[in-house]
Amino acid sequence: MMTDLFITPKLQTLLPRLRAFMHEEVYPLEKLFLTRPYAELEKNELAALRQKVKSEGLWAPHLPEEEGGMGLNLVEFGQVSEILGTSPLGHYAFNCQAPDIGNMELLHKYASPVLKERYLQPLVAGQIRSCFSMTEPEFAGSNPVRMATRAERVGNQYIINGHKWFTSSADGAAFAIVMAITNPKAAPHARASMILVPLETAGFVHVRRISIMGEEGSGYMSHSEVRYENCAVPVEHLIGNEGEGFKLAQERLGPGRIHHCMRWIGICERAFDMMCRYAAQRELSENTPIAAKQIVQSWIAESRAQINAARLMVLHTAAGIDRKGTHALRVEISTIKFFVANVLMQVLDRAIQVHGALGITDDTLLSFWYRHERGARIYDGPDEVHQYVVARETLKNYGIKI
Amino acid sequence: MMTDLFITPKLQTLLPRLRAFMHEEVYPLEKLFLTRPYAELEKNELAALRQKVKSEGLWAPHLPEEEGGMGLNLVEFGQVSEILGTSPLGHYAFNCQAPDIGNMELLHKYASPVLKERYLQPLVAGQIRSCFSMTEPEFAGSNPVRMATRAERVGNQYIINGHKWFTSSADGAAFAIVMAITNPKAAPHARASMILVPLETAGFVHVRRISIMGEEGSGYMSHSEVRYENCAVPVEHLIGNEGEGFKLAQERLGPGRIHHCMRWIGICERAFDMMCRYAAQRELSENTPIAAKQIVQSWIAESRAQINAARLMVLHTAAGIDRKGTHALRVEISTIKFFVANVLMQVLDRAIQVHGALGITDDTLLSFWYRHERGARIYDGPDEVHQYVVARETLKNYGIKI
Amino acid sequence: MMTDLFITPKLQTLLPRLRAFMHEEVYPLEKLFLTRPYAELEKNELAALRQKVKSEGLWAPHLPEEEGGMGLNLVEFGQVSEILGTSPLGHYAFNCQAPDIGNMELLHKYASPVLKERYLQPLVAGQIRSCFSMTEPEFAGSNPVRMATRAERVGNQYIINGHKWFTSSADGAAFAIVMAITNPKAAPHARASMILVPLETAGFVHVRRISIMGEEGSGYMSHSEVRYENCAVPVEHLIGNEGEGFKLAQERLGPGRIHHCMRWIGICERAFDMMCRYAAQRELSENTPIAAKQIVQSWIAESRAQINAARLMVLHTAAGIDRKGTHALRVEISTIKFFVANVLMQVLDRAIQVHGALGITDDTLLSFWYRHERGARIYDGPDEVHQYVVARETLKNYGIKI
Amino acid sequence: MMTDLFITPKLQTLLPRLRAFMHEEVYPLEKLFLTRPYAELEKNELAALRQKVKSEGLWAPHLPEEEGGMGLNLVEFGQVSEILGTSPLGHYAFNCQAPDIGNMELLHKYASPVLKERYLQPLVAGQIRSCFSMTEPEFAGSNPVRMATRAERVGNQYIINGHKWFTSSADGAAFAIVMAITNPKAAPHARASMILVPLETAGFVHVRRISIMGEEGSGYMSHSEVRYENCAVPVEHLIGNEGEGFKLAQERLGPGRIHHCMRWIGICERAFDMMCRYAAQRELSENTPIAAKQIVQSWIAESRAQINAARLMVLHTAAGIDRKGTHALRVEISTIKFFVANVLMQVLDRAIQVHGALGITDDTLLSFWYRHERGARIYDGPDEVHQYVVARETLKNYGIKI
Repeated sequence: MMTDLFITPKLQTLLPRLRAFMHEEVYPLEKLFLTRPYAELEKNELAALRQKVKSEGLWAPHLPEEEGGMGLNLVEFGQVSEILGTSPLGHYAFNCQAPDIGNMELLHKYASPVLKERYLQPLVAGQIRSCFSMTEPEFAGSNPVRMATRAERVGNQYIINGHKWFTSSADGAAFAIVMAITNPKAAPHARASMILVPLETAGFVHVRRISIMGEEGSGYMSHSEVRYENCAVPVEHLIGNEGEGFKLAQERLGPGRIHHCMRWIGICERAFDMMCRYAAQRELSENTPIAAKQIVQSWIAESRAQINAARLMVLHTAAGIDRKGTHALRVEISTIKFFVANVLMQVLDRAIQVHGALGITDDTLLSFWYRHERGARIYDGPDEVHQYVVARETLKNYGIKI
Repeated sequence: MMTDLFITPKLQTLLPRLRAFMHEEVYPLEKLFLTRPYAELEKNELAALRQKVKSEGLWAPHLPEEEGGMGLNLVEFGQVSEILGTSPLGHYAFNCQAPDIGNMELLHKYASPVLKERYLQPLVAGQIRSCFSMTEPEFAGSNPVRMATRAERVGNQYIINGHKWFTSSADGAAFAIVMAITNPKAAPHARASMILVPLETAGFVHVRRISIMGEEGSGYMSHSEVRYENCAVPVEHLIGNEGEGFKLAQERLGPGRIHHCMRWIGICERAFDMMCRYAAQRELSENTPIAAKQIVQSWIAESRAQINAARLMVLHTAAGIDRKGTHALRVEISTIKFFVANVLMQVLDRAIQVHGALGITDDTLLSFWYRHERGARIYDGPDEVHQYVVARETLKNYGIKI
Repeated sequence: MMTDLFITPKLQTLLPRLRAFMHEEVYPLEKLFLTRPYAELEKNELAALRQKVKSEGLWAPHLPEEEGGMGLNLVEFGQVSEILGTSPLGHYAFNCQAPDIGNMELLHKYASPVLKERYLQPLVAGQIRSCFSMTEPEFAGSNPVRMATRAERVGNQYIINGHKWFTSSADGAAFAIVMAITNPKAAPHARASMILVPLETAGFVHVRRISIMGEEGSGYMSHSEVRYENCAVPVEHLIGNEGEGFKLAQERLGPGRIHHCMRWIGICERAFDMMCRYAAQRELSENTPIAAKQIVQSWIAESRAQINAARLMVLHTAAGIDRKGTHALRVEISTIKFFVANVLMQVLDRAIQVHGALGITDDTLLSFWYRHERGARIYDGPDEVHQYVVARETLKNYGIKI
Repeated sequence: MMTDLFITPKLQTLLPRLRAFMHEEVYPLEKLFLTRPYAELEKNELAALRQKVKSEGLWAPHLPEEEGGMGLNLVEFGQVSEILGTSPLGHYAFNCQAPDIGNMELLHKYASPVLKERYLQPLVAGQIRSCFSMTEPEFAGSNPVRMATRAERVGNQYIINGHKWFTSSADGAAFAIVMAITNPKAAPHARASMILVPLETAGFVHVRRISIMGEEGSGYMSHSEVRYENCAVPVEHLIGNEGEGFKLAQERLGPGRIHHCMRWIGICERAFDMMCRYAAQRELSENTPIAAKQIVQSWIAESRAQINAARLMVLHTAAGIDRKGTHALRVEISTIKFFVANVLMQVLDRAIQVHGALGITDDTLLSFWYRHERGARIYDGPDEVHQYVVARETLKNYGIKI
């Protein structure tokens, strides 16, 4: 209802169908997600779930029609992403999970036919997974120009050496797209390139799955530290052109932020629902539910307001990107990043407080999100960097450069 | 740009015209507003300005076309209201200032032809002003059912006795619409009626213009305490039916909140502009403007995000009212009330902090808004009441009544 | 009770006596303060009140015993200042109001016997008032090194030229202590001096009382813009030595912050009391006082916590200054400045919200404080400057200079 | 330095000694704590560490001298607790960890000589551990009067039946002190008693270690769900008298809150140190450390202010308890609970944000605290309950009972 301005004909049937599917097929698996090793779930129930998604024709909803997807624009896919985001299993079940979704997009646009056949097709089919290898522990992630990983061209190969972490989902992935300096003498933004590295390549070293907020995780649900030690790949594994690494990264980030922000809004809506449900049912004393407390009521109201605001801003930005492209909306893209990440943290915090002791257990999803989404205010640029972007662009209108 | 989703054909030419008019005709008068007694301004420059507005065909933009207005829907008038709201003089200059705008609406819909001729027509023409007399000092305004003012029917007259305050703009007004109990034995929400009382009526006592945040004000820019002492008016002065007072008040409030919220957003945009402009120009040391400070940058970014969010929520709500009526959007109407009022206070506070000592003087508009808009979180129901409404309606979906 | 750690023998009888005096003699005048021109009050009731204070032997409690004061240390006077601060009339009634209190201290320590006799004695006696003239409209006040006012030595005179504002209480004052550049070629912090300028001096131009937050004020309760136009004073009017202006200003600020912070805490306690009293008495519906609302309860609790925290921090800092001097406590002095100013704004804001419409009127003191204490986050260095000081000193321990 | 007002002769040598011990002996084990299963650490390094603490005469610093402790009052032990709290291993290493410390106190005061010999002595000696079994999953913990666990007296035994969770450290403990209804017909606060239940008793069922914020934990570092199924213990296992359960729980909570709050302040200081250290060393670009950013500087300053405020409030409250007992300070005890818990969460959040991606990994202690101390705002009564207590007691002075 809230989003009726952004409801297109395609969505009129798709969204209700997705909501029903989540309720019937995805949410019931969450109990297993909370209590069993993820690897088991991935191999069994999630694999079956993905088949079901395929058989229902809902697979990879982000893809263009010519590749078997639904041909949704960003406003449309954003709303799909919100619904999938209501469960930690949603995006993976539909094969539109980060970082694979971004990698598909990159390969689709910039990879050679050979790479497409070898890597994009099985990725689209869900037969393999991939990862994206950019952040380095030695350099602050908020300054993407600083990077030590080198890819030296030797003959018809790139020889890659470097140290990366937060290479998410590397565990079990078939390949990484690696950001590495190929042109060290170029201008700062033109030094790096993106190169596809199959993880079976000699010299690829998986150091560890980094324990994040109490969990090492596994497979898709993990974040790795890796090393590239004289890792050699054919020059054809270059994505786009040499020196275009940052340009491609930027291009990837625009729609990526819409995806993330809408996923966060999905989490918000689920946490909001959990908060209301628990407040309505849990009694403080006979016949007095938690919901009778005025402070809880104000949390419900403030959460409702913030979530509505967040969704409108993100979809409005998505509509702008659909019409005018990422660059024209760069201020809005930075705005939603920090705004929605903060709404997310606040809504989760309130939902936990309403759940009391239960809220800090892993008996509900709240703890998982509280822990793993704390990163939302950090990755892809911390709040402070995005606020700077908004201020910088605003102040240009006042004649100064900051 | 931000609001392009809500730009209609009418607005495409109207908004730029209004913006230009504000810059050329209205903003230049603000210096006088800040330094001279308001009564003088009202009599001279503002009177001339209103003539100019009329001659440009921009008068009373909220009215339906058949009454000489522009026939704007709520989404459209909301955007007009934002632009007018960028100056404290805007709405009055265009004769769409509260409380007159609400009174025009009420009379238009519910008054007898005689009343319309005698009071609505000159009000629309800007020849008289009016006021709205509801709040009573003895009862908390957040509970509109509690009220002591009585209107007893005696023969073909109502004899009104009561004590009111925050009867805004009563000073110099031609009439008040008074909320009074006519049916004391009815259910709480069916006890009050609205009655038009010419202020020349015997028994109407103007007690004082209440000094608000340091200013007693005068005329349109004032808030009065008044008494009705055996104040007798013909029964034909009833607006609508007996016992419909609350119903009419509610009806008045829906669009009224859109008007207010968009006016607040207008203030936000102006304060934001002042903040950026001052930050860009004022130097902390040689060649280091205030805008170079990261905290100021973050204020700019957060303000931008909040204002964008606020506008989208209000216009989205207005669009809903245009399609489905006030009642269907009552949760959203409460949501925007507290959300936007808080954004307003935060944006003003930041703008003042950036201006330093200048910010607390009356040399800029910031102090006026900081003082007079503090009431935004109180009037028409404090934040807490609106949060309760949102929570109450939300929790109905979870099977409980709070 | 809260402050028992800081209660000295002197205070054991003094504080209860002051509290009683405030209740009996000062609070009853506040109604006049809110409704009558301040100049009248000053001339009549306040003059009588000051006589009463003298006759009770409570006059000028900040002075050393040898000058007829009570010989209180900073911890002790701080607690006196809190009690006086509970009324806007308190400090003036006891002749320990800023800026006179700071000027007395300066003259006492650094003025020649002649100046002392001519200016300090009548100031101490309450026969004249004074002002302090530092801030200039052309330069950001947060950088006190930037200043254009010049005092050129010509013969045995200083010829002063400059433009100042926020020269508080200049209206009706007998003299100003003016900060002016005497040594333009010295290092930045050694350029300025403090010079006493009788306001009857030719070339002193009182431009205007600046309207601040809706009020121009008058006399002690005003803030002026002034000009010095070839204003000549004897060189003996120099306070301290040439080039010591900043040093003296810093010295003045340390105890000044304790005075201010404790005054703010006095305001907080009074506003807290008003909030609780109103919440307990004002009914939302029959037999349901505002205090029954959980959100109001949480405001009471949070205000209580913040005020307690603020007082402990300030008195702890005062105790440190008493033992070790201002310089050793410079980090704590900056810490309390921004911490307490923000507590003040929050407590006032909550008290207003609890009072509803009444809270924004000038029928209570809340509006006066809300408006005039907004400057607390700005004057004597905005929050941001004090936060910088704390961070800078902290980070020195980590080997870096910011 | 900050706390010099509270430094007693005993502390003058003790605190520096403890600080040195933490640096030399405890902090070096934290790396193991972060990377190895806790059970291993407990068995090996921690066991050795405890021996070292004993051999240095620092063991169980909370105990009275006659029991081999240091005879510290609450103000003194509070400051010890802060230092121990700077590491997650501190309190356990010194055998003054919750819940054992509270159980020692209870047994010391209220247990029979037999129980003391059998359970208190080995607990004091660190040969066994214990747990406290109060919260029930079926009832909101914020209302301690609601409870279903029953202890029926049958002959000279209590037969206990009930379901508990958050029975912290039950895994591997020798006994629990169980809160159970013994007098169901008494007034609500006189129904429950505390009974010591050896965990080897038939009918004690350890259901699970509850996974909390991503970790199931083990041994001392765990929180269990347990059942009592016809669990029979001798009536001599009653602690205190029948019906005194709540009274004893309250008595336990007063000093317990000082311990917790000072432990939190210890965490704050450590996180603050980590934040400053990282900000000073981590570069955003060549020669520009994170500490150069103004927002980080403001976080440092605000954290410093909040931690100082928190410590002063807690020690001031402890001093009050030392002089006047728990009951007289009940408002202050509630005040510090919510105030300090919120400071803790804010300081941790800022420290994480400064650390960027590293901050969400388990490579530093920040993640552990961020996750496990979220409960600080919930356990022993959520913020909202303590705010209610402060408001309730405050409003009694205004003649109303809420």
